[in-house]
Amino acid sequence: MNQDYEKLAGHIEKMTALQTALTLFDWDAETIAPRDSLEMTARMVGQLSSLYFEALVNEEVKGLLQTLAKADDLTQAQAAVVRELSKTLSDLEKIPPEEYRAFRELQAQATTVWARAKQENDFDAFAPILSDMLSYVKKFAAYRRKEGQSLYDAQLDEYEEGFTKEVLDPFFALLKEKIVPLLKKAAAKNDSFDTSPLRQRFDLAKQKEFNRWLAAYIGFDFNRGVMAESEHPFTTELHNHDVRITNHYHEQAVENAIFSTIHEGGHAIYEMNVADELTQTPAGGGASCGMHESQSRFMENMLGRSLAFWEPVYPKLKEYFPQQLKDVGVEDFVRWINKAQPSLIRTEADELTYCLHVMIRYELEKELIDGHLSVEELPGAWNDRYEAYLGVRPQNDREGVLQDIHWSQGSFGYFPSYALGNAFAAQIYHAMKQELAVEECLRSGDLAPIRDWLKEKIHRFGQVKKTRQLLQEVTGEDFNPQYYIDYLIGKFTKLYGLEM
Amino acid sequence: MNQDYEKLAGHIEKMTALQTALTLFDWDAETIAPRDSLEMTARMVGQLSSLYFEALVNEEVKGLLQTLAKADDLTQAQAAVVRELSKTLSDLEKIPPEEYRAFRELQAQATTVWARAKQENDFDAFAPILSDMLSYVKKFAAYRRKEGQSLYDAQLDEYEEGFTKEVLDPFFALLKEKIVPLLKKAAAKNDSFDTSPLRQRFDLAKQKEFNRWLAAYIGFDFNRGVMAESEHPFTTELHNHDVRITNHYHEQAVENAIFSTIHEGGHAIYEMNVADELTQTPAGGGASCGMHESQSRFMENMLGRSLAFWEPVYPKLKEYFPQQLKDVGVEDFVRWINKAQPSLIRTEADELTYCLHVMIRYELEKELIDGHLSVEELPGAWNDRYEAYLGVRPQNDREGVLQDIHWSQGSFGYFPSYALGNAFAAQIYHAMKQELAVEECLRSGDLAPIRDWLKEKIHRFGQVKKTRQLLQEVTGEDFNPQYYIDYLIGKFTKLYGLEM
Repeated sequence: MNQDYEKLAGHIEKMTALQTALTLFDWDAETIAPRDSLEMTARMVGQLSSLYFEALVNEEVKGLLQTLAKADDLTQAQAAVVRELSKTLSDLEKIPPEEYRAFRELQAQATTVWARAKQENDFDAFAPILSDMLSYVKKFAAYRRKEGQSLYDAQLDEYEEGFTKEVLDPFFALLKEKIVPLLKKAAAKNDSFDTSPLRQRFDLAKQKEFNRWLAAYIGFDFNRGVMAESEHPFTTELHNHDVRITNHYHEQAVENAIFSTIHEGGHAIYEMNVADELTQTPAGGGASCGMHESQSRFMENMLGRSLAFWEPVYPKLKEYFPQQLKDVGVEDFVRWINKAQPSLIRTEADELTYCLHVMIRYELEKELIDGHLSVEELPGAWNDRYEAYLGVRPQNDREGVLQDIHWSQGSFGYFPSYALGNAFAAQIYHAMKQELAVEECLRSGDLAPIRDWLKEKIHRFGQVKKTRQLLQEVTGEDFNPQYYIDYLIGKFTKLYGLEM
Repeated sequence: MNQDYEKLAGHIEKMTALQTALTLFDWDAETIAPRDSLEMTARMVGQLSSLYFEALVNEEVKGLLQTLAKADDLTQAQAAVVRELSKTLSDLEKIPPEEYRAFRELQAQATTVWARAKQENDFDAFAPILSDMLSYVKKFAAYRRKEGQSLYDAQLDEYEEGFTKEVLDPFFALLKEKIVPLLKKAAAKNDSFDTSPLRQRFDLAKQKEFNRWLAAYIGFDFNRGVMAESEHPFTTELHNHDVRITNHYHEQAVENAIFSTIHEGGHAIYEMNVADELTQTPAGGGASCGMHESQSRFMENMLGRSLAFWEPVYPKLKEYFPQQLKDVGVEDFVRWINKAQPSLIRTEADELTYCLHVMIRYELEKELIDGHLSVEELPGAWNDRYEAYLGVRPQNDREGVLQDIHWSQGSFGYFPSYALGNAFAAQIYHAMKQELAVEECLRSGDLAPIRDWLKEKIHRFGQVKKTRQLLQEVTGEDFNPQYYIDYLIGKFTKLYGLEM
């Protein structure tokens, strides 16, 4: 092995151990940590973050990375590690440590301020900290940006390399042109959906049992994973042999937990399939936020909301809830779980509306960062766009601009990944169907060929191959949003019996 | 604040953060970590241990501790921190780092080897690693021991400062003289106990609910604590605002989980009551293993197995299990949960037999360390003593010498703390009754005065006051095992209607 790489590997072990400890503290806080523990635990977490920072940002690591960037005897995986770590280091280095620390502290404060402002529906209480956060984000983006790059593009680059405004503007324009009118047509026909059987009482203990079964069914390996509960479902991992998902159970909405299981399961299976040589390195984990989201959305929507998926699965659900579902056939069930209903809350949105929620956030954050919109104007602009695109107007900021945590954390530029993920998924699904009888796999109750295909072509590479390279290699072309548009139009015109 | 102490505090924050991360990984491994994660996670844990070692054992910390040992402007808490940290450092320093690392690796291996040997009832498979472990322990004890000190005394000092063979020999001699015959007399009358109602099926979900109620009832604060499940119940803590206990539920032995709750609850309440200025420092946590055990045993046995305790609690248990307990009165219930039955497994032992299990281990490990007994002779010696003292002989090593994990981890000298804890508890209980109407508190269902008394006199001091000092101050005399003997004789002659 390259001797410098061997030295670097020692540093990486240290960083990874500290990073993993931080992940475990996060997991613990979201799942079981007691209410009054957070303040004292925060001090430990702060210490571990500093130790992580010191392990990464130092002259020895920097020197090794510079030498290794020129080495010609690295494996593909090693080269990816050097590339990813160099990027992280160079981004962090450009920020003065004291500004970075101040930013992290602001972030910690902002979580609480945002949560309280949301609870009390008080945007004015949140506005000052949002302004501060915005200033930091713009300042840091200015440190990082390449010559001539706009601040928002520098920000987008943090989450989805290469997906600049030049790519996203036409993508969201297409969504606006095609999906806004489709949603309005569909919504006008929603009277024909009577989903009341799904609003009965579904015992929580039974839901939990069914969802454990379902997670295993789609391929979540409980020998290498944990499923727990939290306020909002999420996926995290210590490494590819310890991947964790959470869920949240609602007594009168049995489908909520089900689609969380399939969605988080999609994320988790990606992580479980990353190669052993990559996990516990900076090139472990998924290729990008958007590629990760593509795997969860593919599982959740393209597979998980199809009739073929439910044919073998629905009888199992009926075993758990024979009373509630006695008059509900599988066709009705699948129709209901696909109902498109313009609504105010992104995380509760159906498949068709979802991308429009993201589109609104994209438009607004672009204007906030590039300076055409002020924090004061934000709530009004938010509500106006919901009315224009979705036909519903928030009655207060709690169900409007205060609903998401992202901006309070400085995560401007993250939202587009959610829509991109759906679009990647559609493009990948199209390619998969050329090679695999997907619906037959689903009907037979054996999802292994689908998982194997994804593992072989995407998952195992971790971050060795970047998202655009993966798209090119897996689908034979660059990012093409038309597949997503076609998928949505095809599915929902059929579901609603619409003319195109 | 003393400026050197301020510098030391910076180092302590780092050590504490790393130590807390290690605690969280341990907790996670015992409660929910997936089966196949352990090997990869072990690498991270190894890294964090090394970082902890580096944070503690270095010239800067050593220099600060030396200066601070002579400082006269430290608070009592600060002085205790300096004293405790100096002891840890000086113990560690005496061991060459490479030997320490080899020992830790052996320890990690030994866990697995022991578990498999136990499962397969194969002492021969365990013997070589036990011999290696014993060599390390003896070597390390030789590094640490004061002039003229025996190896076993040096080892005892690790767990219970000042409780040498000189103290323990007469203590265990007294137990042998008084308790061995008492147990035999009691056992002869066990036919009069028909505990079969407790062997019915008790729904696990209901048990969990009742035990959560019970934990809160005895004073476990769920805003500062977590209760989860694991193979063997234990208590751990991140700090005094995050104390965690586990339990294990048995369908046909409802009392198991109940007494685990009260036992671990006793440990937990101690930790929750440690002063804020001490938690997250090397002088946080309990005064010693034995003092910790005294608090759990006091709760479990002296309070938790008394009629006064159950008078207000038993109706609640009956609410949860009306069918199973319909013909069982509170007096019968309390009689049954005190049944003394010579048995083979320490962790399942009743209150009277328990100290004899410990006595056997004390005798054997003393001989192992000081060289009068070989590893080969150990299983036979174990079985002989069970037969002699308890009147029962293990049929295999699984229910004999392989039952406990302690020796596989090199924890020779730890067992006596378990018996000392019971004896401390009896001595403290005697003192408490001079000042507090304990039984009235129990009958009224309000345990707060008892907890407050313990907090005020013991818990809040963490490790500021050592165990012997606490005993002296709280009870007005040095350690006196007679209270424990009197307590056992009084309780069990009454329960069994024996003549003394």
